[in-house]
Amino acid sequence: MQLGMIGELRLLEEIRRRFSDPSQKRDRGIIVGIGDDAAAFTPPLETMLVTTDMMHEGVDFDLSYTSPFHLGFKLVSVNVSDIAAMGGRSSFLFLTMSMKGDTDEIFFTKFCDGVARALQQYGMALIGGDLSSARNDMVFSATVIGNTGKPVLRSGASAGDGVYVTYVTGDAACGLELLKRMAPESREAVKKWLDYEVPLPDLILTDGSGFSKIDGNRVKPLLARHLMPAARDVRDLLPHITSMIDVSDGLFMDLCRICDESGTGAKVYLDKVPMSDSMKFASDRIGLSSLELAVSGGEDYELLFTMPPDVAERLDVGHACIGEITEKERITIDKSGRKAALKAEGYQHFGPA
Amino acid sequence: MQLGMIGELRLLEEIRRRFSDPSQKRDRGIIVGIGDDAAAFTPPLETMLVTTDMMHEGVDFDLSYTSPFHLGFKLVSVNVSDIAAMGGRSSFLFLTMSMKGDTDEIFFTKFCDGVARALQQYGMALIGGDLSSARNDMVFSATVIGNTGKPVLRSGASAGDGVYVTYVTGDAACGLELLKRMAPESREAVKKWLDYEVPLPDLILTDGSGFSKIDGNRVKPLLARHLMPAARDVRDLLPHITSMIDVSDGLFMDLCRICDESGTGAKVYLDKVPMSDSMKFASDRIGLSSLELAVSGGEDYELLFTMPPDVAERLDVGHACIGEITEKERITIDKSGRKAALKAEGYQHFGPA
Repeated sequence: MQLGMIGELRLLEEIRRRFSDPSQKRDRGIIVGIGDDAAAFTPPLETMLVTTDMMHEGVDFDLSYTSPFHLGFKLVSVNVSDIAAMGGRSSFLFLTMSMKGDTDEIFFTKFCDGVARALQQYGMALIGGDLSSARNDMVFSATVIGNTGKPVLRSGASAGDGVYVTYVTGDAACGLELLKRMAPESREAVKKWLDYEVPLPDLILTDGSGFSKIDGNRVKPLLARHLMPAARDVRDLLPHITSMIDVSDGLFMDLCRICDESGTGAKVYLDKVPMSDSMKFASDRIGLSSLELAVSGGEDYELLFTMPPDVAERLDVGHACIGEITEKERITIDKSGRKAALKAEGYQHFGPA
Repeated sequence: MQLGMIGELRLLEEIRRRFSDPSQKRDRGIIVGIGDDAAAFTPPLETMLVTTDMMHEGVDFDLSYTSPFHLGFKLVSVNVSDIAAMGGRSSFLFLTMSMKGDTDEIFFTKFCDGVARALQQYGMALIGGDLSSARNDMVFSATVIGNTGKPVLRSGASAGDGVYVTYVTGDAACGLELLKRMAPESREAVKKWLDYEVPLPDLILTDGSGFSKIDGNRVKPLLARHLMPAARDVRDLLPHITSMIDVSDGLFMDLCRICDESGTGAKVYLDKVPMSDSMKFASDRIGLSSLELAVSGGEDYELLFTMPPDVAERLDVGHACIGEITEKERITIDKSGRKAALKAEGYQHFGPA
């Protein structure tokens, strides 16, 4: 059934029925959640953190290769990632949806499924939001509230700190490039794929002039990282982290943000930028530079942080050290020792193409 | 200059320059506002309130008679109104904007002017948000955080309580009907009108077959109520208010929400519904029922609350008592004593037209 035939009130009832868990209310200090003018809750004793992110159809997501489930999951994750980048734990979600009247109810249900999966994964509760309608493109927006004992800002880096990044970068960007090149039937297979454990078939890529196959299971981590990224968490290292950001617009662009806010420079050893074998394999297959994807690809949702290197060594942090914070100089150094300027290249809305 | 030529980073810088007031940071317990992954602030000691609202072009606003200044102001107001309906005071705004690449910079500046005016009026600070781009319709979304010593829920009404509403209802809906019927040159005059003190010229209305004039200053309160509604505040009555809601979708629909949540009925005396003379005059001129506009018009942003009538009388609340909460029965009674069913009629997204 189309949403236009269901009506706002019944949709709100459905959301309320689905996401209001009375057992959670007491534990979390929720006085009132969905269903009043505003949510009310007892404040935490720690510092409060609030972040918000909007996803606009055709700009931030493309329904030809993104399922509503993926979208719901990702919308929560990207906000949780922002809270994590402040050293925080996410507690509450506020969800705003603007869908078209002719949108099918199944879209709405699957989107909620994705949101619910993420809430469960991060131990959060949905306690408010807004429902609007759209004439053209759909828009989803989320606000996440969290808290931390020690807020970590972008501005705390000092010359001499090591620069660390969790896991690998470039996977999500490479996954997106694969999806863009994928034949419709393969896109459909990927859209139905909701669980990382489930195997993927061979996928068909097309470059306009011909078709080729790629092993679905080999590129699974890349597709997963784009479609339903899990937010990272380095709270065990919090006492020692001097600055942090989540990599959403590209590793170099986000590193430059740390430098800008901290009033420093940075030196990056290109051969230390962590990349996955899957990404190297797939980028090679589609003729893209893996390093390019890793340093400016965007949507990694990895955490980029700084820490005194002696502390990092002592703690055995387990994340790649890609360079160090400098007084002023911003450079990259390749394997042969060649230096180049470190440039803030990455994605920006309204940006020059 | 178009936003697409300016770029996201410069727009963000502009927002940050404009809305980051270092003197406010200390006073409000802001640790970090705009410019990090999330905003961080010291929690209040009182109950926290959070609300969010999205406005989608073509659905929630029409740029042919709404200026960007009005839009910015209203977006903040409607959220502040939700916080007020919980008995709260608003502190922080998070603002999300999705505009088109070919949107003129002036639109952005004027929108920010409207937001700034509202922030000043309500004593709030903008401490975060998100900037996205849109292919078609623009979307603006806001999250407002406030606090209260006593959260007032929709669910607290009891049989016997009086039903009160601040000021008058129907003004905003009537203002919207006037704007819809207004000739383009009059719409332009209204769009340039940013200050209530400034007089308005005669306005030209058109019904398709002909034109007529209406005194701009006489209908000024109606246009103002639609274009830039001020949020109401009844915090001086808080200790005695048993339930509250802000009237956004229509007086009767929102009263029914109080009844639904409180498990009660309500009786409304139609001749007690407060209406302004301007609204009665203008609705008559355009052939609409003033009572109809007042009970189901929507976007009033008045506060509808319940309170024991003896307390209200003793305090001299200064707001219209339109009826009382009943055990179960939901009825309206007109001047001649005729009863009819109280129906939840008002605006809903995705609703049957």
